[in-house]
Amino acid sequence: MNVEATLSRLRVVLSRTTHPGNIGAAARAMKTMGLARLFLVRPESFPHPAARALAAGAQDVLDQAKACASLEEALAGAAIAIACTSRARELAHVPLDARAAAAEAAALARGGAEVALVFGSEGSGLTNEELMKCNRLASIPASAQYPSLNLGAAVQVMAYEVRMSALGPASPEVQAGELAPHEDVERFFAQLEQSITRSGFLHPRYPRRLMDRLRRLFGRTRLEKEEVNILRGMLAAWDRHPGTGPKNS
Amino acid sequence: MNVEATLSRLRVVLSRTTHPGNIGAAARAMKTMGLARLFLVRPESFPHPAARALAAGAQDVLDQAKACASLEEALAGAAIAIACTSRARELAHVPLDARAAAAEAAALARGGAEVALVFGSEGSGLTNEELMKCNRLASIPASAQYPSLNLGAAVQVMAYEVRMSALGPASPEVQAGELAPHEDVERFFAQLEQSITRSGFLHPRYPRRLMDRLRRLFGRTRLEKEEVNILRGMLAAWDRHPGTGPKNS
Repeated sequence: MNVEATLSRLRVVLSRTTHPGNIGAAARAMKTMGLARLFLVRPESFPHPAARALAAGAQDVLDQAKACASLEEALAGAAIAIACTSRARELAHVPLDARAAAAEAAALARGGAEVALVFGSEGSGLTNEELMKCNRLASIPASAQYPSLNLGAAVQVMAYEVRMSALGPASPEVQAGELAPHEDVERFFAQLEQSITRSGFLHPRYPRRLMDRLRRLFGRTRLEKEEVNILRGMLAAWDRHPGTGPKNS
Repeated sequence: MNVEATLSRLRVVLSRTTHPGNIGAAARAMKTMGLARLFLVRPESFPHPAARALAAGAQDVLDQAKACASLEEALAGAAIAIACTSRARELAHVPLDARAAAAEAAALARGGAEVALVFGSEGSGLTNEELMKCNRLASIPASAQYPSLNLGAAVQVMAYEVRMSALGPASPEVQAGELAPHEDVERFFAQLEQSITRSGFLHPRYPRRLMDRLRRLFGRTRLEKEEVNILRGMLAAWDRHPGTGPKNS
């Protein structure tokens, strides 16, 4: 209902940004669309005069930007992380277009969830490891001839779409339970990896491919807090109880 | 029908641009969205190294930019000119939002008409005289606290909206892999129930509530065929292998 309250639950995460000017441009783009919370994961140079210059009237967004040592840290407390990329990925999540992703982001934020929009470095985008920490992949439908948006411009488009969704009518899609924060979901994945390594299902020589598939699967569901508890309890029970053949229920 | 043909009928007109870097940023923004035709009305400095630097891979758009002595000249041949502004005007046309204006622009271009998107100078926007030469006023719904988009960012948003309209209605969300048929998913649930009964996690006296929650969780994901195979293989491995404590990976 309240646009400002919805937008206040959105954060923009810039990972390993190379050019400080782009950080300033992103801050300006955010502020024009009513977003204020900027997280910077290991930027190459920040603070920097170029960032201040390009921020123009959005110095306050820069001043309040949170420096983070890892993407992990920048995602703490976020119920959903949307990776924004222009590149097609092989094994990763199927990308939503920017509009669909923004609609989901706004709907979740309206419902009270913390949402992160995540952008990689200018040169190479998000690493696969970073991508796997996100629940969604969003892509701006750019020209195949030249899909390379400037980082600040990409932030502008995503922020614009989120604002349009926040201004628009509420989408019907709602989820009942409280969504699990990022760190809870990561703990589940860590426990899952341990457990399927123990059971012999995860081959220690090719661990990543399978874990990536499982992350993709569970990433699509937007796990609720209680569901993570159930899944972790289920894993613990398997680990505790000797397997005695196919069934003895 | 043909997106390229539609977009080829759109031109971007920048009037009295102050900073050459913004011309380069606009060129890049255009090219990422499939637009190629740039008209420059009395820019303060052009050509300029800053324009080339910010154009990145869109040098060709700069090279083919048409220098014009007046807005009149830049609009020659255009059936409709859309003035893009963030400011509310007293006497001018009632503004459409960017999306509605882009939808009209794309529809006209699709029908064969030449369409111009017109942007004023960074400091003062379009003059009233310039505005009066346009048929429409389009405004990006920006935050009232800070509605001042960078010129390149405004071109990016308008070009993006025009491209989205030219591409037509959003394609439904697609999923990469082949979805699992109902009966495969049911076999997975049956195996899951057996396995968590064996492990002691599913209390035989209250089996339904937990299974319902798990069905709801996995039901949200739309499981793929291969994912069901992975999940069932994982369950089989847990059942085969004695649990030996919390971890021994």
